[in-house]
Amino acid sequence: MGDPFPREVFVVGVGMTAFGRHEGKTIQDLGPEAVRAALADAGLGYEAIETAYCGHVLQGSTAGQRVLYELGMTGIPIFNVENACASGTSALRAAALAVGHGIADVALACGFEVMGRGAIPTGGDARLERGAPAGVAPLPALFSAVFRAHAERYGTTLEQLAAVTVKNRAYGAKNPRAQFHEAVTLDEVMASREVAPPLRLLMCCPTTSGAAAVVVASADVARGTRKPIRIVASVLRSDPAIDRGDALAGITEINSAAMRAAFEQAGVRPDQLDTAEVHDCFSIAEIIHYENLGLCARGEGGRFAEQGIKDARVKVSTSGGLLAKGHPLGATGVAQTVEAVEQLRGESGERQVQGARLALAHCQGFGGAAGVHIFAK
Amino acid sequence: MGDPFPREVFVVGVGMTAFGRHEGKTIQDLGPEAVRAALADAGLGYEAIETAYCGHVLQGSTAGQRVLYELGMTGIPIFNVENACASGTSALRAAALAVGHGIADVALACGFEVMGRGAIPTGGDARLERGAPAGVAPLPALFSAVFRAHAERYGTTLEQLAAVTVKNRAYGAKNPRAQFHEAVTLDEVMASREVAPPLRLLMCCPTTSGAAAVVVASADVARGTRKPIRIVASVLRSDPAIDRGDALAGITEINSAAMRAAFEQAGVRPDQLDTAEVHDCFSIAEIIHYENLGLCARGEGGRFAEQGIKDARVKVSTSGGLLAKGHPLGATGVAQTVEAVEQLRGESGERQVQGARLALAHCQGFGGAAGVHIFAK
Repeated sequence: MGDPFPREVFVVGVGMTAFGRHEGKTIQDLGPEAVRAALADAGLGYEAIETAYCGHVLQGSTAGQRVLYELGMTGIPIFNVENACASGTSALRAAALAVGHGIADVALACGFEVMGRGAIPTGGDARLERGAPAGVAPLPALFSAVFRAHAERYGTTLEQLAAVTVKNRAYGAKNPRAQFHEAVTLDEVMASREVAPPLRLLMCCPTTSGAAAVVVASADVARGTRKPIRIVASVLRSDPAIDRGDALAGITEINSAAMRAAFEQAGVRPDQLDTAEVHDCFSIAEIIHYENLGLCARGEGGRFAEQGIKDARVKVSTSGGLLAKGHPLGATGVAQTVEAVEQLRGESGERQVQGARLALAHCQGFGGAAGVHIFAK
Repeated sequence: MGDPFPREVFVVGVGMTAFGRHEGKTIQDLGPEAVRAALADAGLGYEAIETAYCGHVLQGSTAGQRVLYELGMTGIPIFNVENACASGTSALRAAALAVGHGIADVALACGFEVMGRGAIPTGGDARLERGAPAGVAPLPALFSAVFRAHAERYGTTLEQLAAVTVKNRAYGAKNPRAQFHEAVTLDEVMASREVAPPLRLLMCCPTTSGAAAVVVASADVARGTRKPIRIVASVLRSDPAIDRGDALAGITEINSAAMRAAFEQAGVRPDQLDTAEVHDCFSIAEIIHYENLGLCARGEGGRFAEQGIKDARVKVSTSGGLLAKGHPLGATGVAQTVEAVEQLRGESGERQVQGARLALAHCQGFGGAAGVHIFAK
């Protein structure tokens, strides 16, 4: 197996809050809960953290400090890292770089978001808002355009999107920290209201608040911890395609490039993965990520969702994914790591993938960044 | 001289826009102008940049991508870094870490901000807003409290604050990129209106838009460039004191700790500095930074502003500082680097400090972060 860093990097502690609406809660409530859980899992105190990277999008200036000062006034460097929906994976990438290149022996990556209804950031980028009908939130409209392009080119159907939701909601029903605890049927997904025609509500991730944290450490530190998991690939890319105004290219090129780079770093093939958390902000996105990952040929994602995924070695979005677990923007990439690590430790309860040894996590901040990490037991 | 990194780090290119109101301009106008200038100065194309760190506070999600996509779609990792008024110095610190630890051979640090009138972020932190009278912007009120505490304890006077403004405006009059091009007299400063009593308008930095960029590179790359300047200290700290609710401690402890650490890294003494850009967001701040730097004893900053600074070896805020050059939040720490590098190269025109060999730059995001860099010829 390859190595993305000059020295080995391990996740030695993971923690997260339940994801959900959390009405009335603040980041000072949620963030410290996740960090304390990650530290307890690692068997380390906050004073062991040498540097911290905090992913968030909507929480205002120095939000990371507001969260971490609840844990201690140790004076460590704190960086607030923002890359839209890839903010959490960017924080993890930064923490992994810090440990892997000897900047720190113990680094914290955390992510958190408190979101009101309908809070979808576009950064005011006209390229992200292009083609959004008045009164429709830009991202659902954009992914509706992605679906229509994919359907026109490859024959992908709404029922195939619904199949993704059914799978992820079934996983979510087995994850006590998921926002949605009920499984749904194909008919229920198809009968949910249209939010960005023809996309139905249950084909879109909900609005979510929550926090997640991981402690990243060197081999020396990891040796003293309970169940360290190694990071064998870590990639962050910005967009090569957004200026072409092609929504479908915007979800294929950056992600497949980042995933290919991650497989190369780790020296593994897609068919060796046991689990994969992908950025299923919309059901159509997960379908295209099957293709991006190389689990099926380009254009075959819809059919793979209906037929292939059941028999595939890799189990996708076992946490419930963004569709069922929820998507508190800055927390998502970190929470994906929590799922990957727990699966590799064999601590995923009812949704455990037996014998899992290799797990991937992927996030995309549309137009801005894609991050991919691969973890190995 | 010491070394803060496993391998040497150089600034090989600097660029910035003029600072000012820039009515109607966007970050896509200002940011690329600064980055192109820095690349041209380095003699490098944008494709040479391997990773980028973008400092900003108010520009929304993935603002760094919106700026850098104007220069090319190279797919490199772009991190948006936020630490309030220390966002720019945090971006520089991240880029220096990347080169110094072998993550990249060429990294970009840039910072930019487009600000409307009265846009002062506090991140909603009640600790920063404590004690702010209704109708007065929190930061002027906070620094008014800092002044009153310093005056009560040490006898510091408003005239001493005015002396700082007079000095920095005189420097600004010699800096073509400063927001204010006119020198002012002590009487004019004292006669300007009270904005946070007893602080006068000209004792507070203005609201500013602008952008700055620096190219950071390894020794191998630096050898091929025109006038590389070495980074001999790089420090970022979060706050050890804000939870005590003591405004004066909030501007002494974090900054003096960060400055001491920087002097130790570089293996130099304060009296060896030739220039220092400090975070003079208010005149009282520069006075306390004289003390934090060790240019005078604790409590002597006011008297040093009137009498000591004239004869000191170190020239402070030669760019005009935040008071005259302006303070576009995310750009400030990067622009301080532009001034330091130009001084060490002997390219500062009318405000050149003859024979400058050692320059310091310091930024504080109040309550969140302090960053210090020392540069050597």
